[in-house]
Amino acid sequence: MKTLVVVGHPRLGESTTQQFLKVAASECANVTWHELQLPFEVTQEQALIQQHDRIIVQFPLYWYSAPAIMRQWFDEVWRMPLTTGNYRLLRGKQFGVVVTAGAARNEFQAGGKQGATMDEVLRPYQMTARVTEMEYLPALPIYQFNYLSEQAKQELYITYQSYISNPEHGHFAGLEQWLLARLDSLVTTMPDLAPVLAQLRDNQEELTDIAQQVKWMRQEDDE
Amino acid sequence: MKTLVVVGHPRLGESTTQQFLKVAASECANVTWHELQLPFEVTQEQALIQQHDRIIVQFPLYWYSAPAIMRQWFDEVWRMPLTTGNYRLLRGKQFGVVVTAGAARNEFQAGGKQGATMDEVLRPYQMTARVTEMEYLPALPIYQFNYLSEQAKQELYITYQSYISNPEHGHFAGLEQWLLARLDSLVTTMPDLAPVLAQLRDNQEELTDIAQQVKWMRQEDDE
Repeated sequence: MKTLVVVGHPRLGESTTQQFLKVAASECANVTWHELQLPFEVTQEQALIQQHDRIIVQFPLYWYSAPAIMRQWFDEVWRMPLTTGNYRLLRGKQFGVVVTAGAARNEFQAGGKQGATMDEVLRPYQMTARVTEMEYLPALPIYQFNYLSEQAKQELYITYQSYISNPEHGHFAGLEQWLLARLDSLVTTMPDLAPVLAQLRDNQEELTDIAQQVKWMRQEDDE
Repeated sequence: MKTLVVVGHPRLGESTTQQFLKVAASECANVTWHELQLPFEVTQEQALIQQHDRIIVQFPLYWYSAPAIMRQWFDEVWRMPLTTGNYRLLRGKQFGVVVTAGAARNEFQAGGKQGATMDEVLRPYQMTARVTEMEYLPALPIYQFNYLSEQAKQELYITYQSYISNPEHGHFAGLEQWLLARLDSLVTTMPDLAPVLAQLRDNQEELTDIAQQVKWMRQEDDE
């Protein structure tokens, strides 16, 4: 699976969040990091989309929308021949959104300061995926990055890597296996990690056993 | 009441809809028609907003969003000092959206081809008004303008004029009075309209009488 991360930010160099995500993405195989810059070479942009299986648009939230440069990419690139007829060139791809917000997570709810959820804010992207028959991935919103603790940043680092490069997106087992595979490749360059990885594998096997037992017990209950 | 109509369209000259709306707006007093062109003179744009009581943003829907030029206006203009601190420079103004769509009205519903309502598509604008304490007007969506019958276009002409210039927005009585006032001013230049206007006034008085009688009858029922 090949992923295209399309970054739309008018002042990319000033964004510590985007720099952080860029480092995280650089460690993932089969991920193309693509920073939008005007003017667009439309044919080339359309080819990029066609060459990837998961398309991630990534931008800061300005007045509950994407910045102009991100929208200009849709205005100019998401046209014929990419969107010809029945959208067969887009159909079946995955489409995700990584959005950064200066407001806190709990402001995005009915009765909260922002008055609606992030899913409502991103409805236009969900609709874009829907009409082109792409699979819409649950969005990855990043709230107040600069206030995150070090631990929260580390968690985000892994979550983000999984979001862009884990083929089994959204499945817990998928995330676990993806993480172990990532650790495997790290061990080749950092042998100190080998015992940690062994421990994790043991834990995972134990967890899988427990999960299986629970499943059997539930089946007995149902009978 | 002064209205600012901010038109964001990348190829304005090619849009018959926008030309139609421009003619309609040109007949209304106290309406400033403002076509966005890059680059923006930010201080001047901010002053324009401050000088008006009703701000209408008007644009075609591209992938369920506004075109880049409209978003760039928000990105660059809706900043300090216009949005300083507690938004007192925006608070209390009215904020409306006139959006044109190539798809049909009945596609914008759950289960319809677009899968969500126009209000859901425009949620970012409602949230923008909300957080700045502006009054959000019900949006005026225009679906498939080029397929409208002549009569439907005439109705749209009046509806649009009311949307941008009727101070009593959204009230039926307000619309009626506004229409009669507009006809009054037309009669001075087109005397042939006088009998039509007289008839309309008679009808309105009769309607008001009937409405009053219905109200009394209901009150009696309630007793």
